[in-house]
Amino acid sequence: MTNTFNSNPRAPVGSGVPGTVAGDDASIDETHRLIASNKVEGTAVYSPDGEKIGSVYNFMVDKISGKVSYAVMSFGGFLGIGESYHPLPWDTLKYEPNYGGYVANVTREQLEGAPQYGRNDEPWGDPEYGRRIYGHYGLPYA
Amino acid sequence: MTNTFNSNPRAPVGSGVPGTVAGDDASIDETHRLIASNKVEGTAVYSPDGEKIGSVYNFMVDKISGKVSYAVMSFGGFLGIGESYHPLPWDTLKYEPNYGGYVANVTREQLEGAPQYGRNDEPWGDPEYGRRIYGHYGLPYA
Repeated sequence: MTNTFNSNPRAPVGSGVPGTVAGDDASIDETHRLIASNKVEGTAVYSPDGEKIGSVYNFMVDKISGKVSYAVMSFGGFLGIGESYHPLPWDTLKYEPNYGGYVANVTREQLEGAPQYGRNDEPWGDPEYGRRIYGHYGLPYA
Repeated sequence: MTNTFNSNPRAPVGSGVPGTVAGDDASIDETHRLIASNKVEGTAVYSPDGEKIGSVYNFMVDKISGKVSYAVMSFGGFLGIGESYHPLPWDTLKYEPNYGGYVANVTREQLEGAPQYGRNDEPWGDPEYGRRIYGHYGLPYA
């Protein structure tokens, strides 16, 4: 496992964090199924091959459907200076208990050219912004 | 409008907070539809007749479906001491732009006898807890 994005990788898949090992359906109880919003914020995000690529800054909820539409990933910067925010469609993320974080099903190339915004930008006012994000990741925009 | 729960009501429905007035479908753009997780936390919750009954402490997301399952409302307490947490099924809440908060479609009687937990309780480990909450509010538990 290479780790070019971040020098602080977490446990790889299969390391067997106690209590979080996936099992039969009966084991998917409330503890495993539900996560508190304030715990999602700050959770690490990994690439499919296990590199840490950032962490969840916040996430965007569709008020009408009640679904989480985007996870906004932050990376880079120091004390918030120079930090950039990368919205990922929520469906690109899969919670991986053995990592204790999310795996983003996106390529490095996709991330490098992806829509992003800075600390003082407010891109969500543009109705086309969501369409651009979904389009970038090759997903249908609902 | 009476206000027996809290002495700090916000603007009543129809007060016309600029930029948030509901209109035709075209006006439901990203700005109106999406809300950031860290903005939901702390948002006021009102009863159907406009009394402020609490605020959103956090909310619980189903990791598998990506849907918000519960909003956990906090009320009472001082500096967190004696504070109680009331999980409400997300579908009982409706965002009301004119209030700048959520309206919970529950009765005062329902709230008074509702499942709640204290600061140091961890009820979500019990797989039956969700069923109890939905049952209490007379909603089918998915």
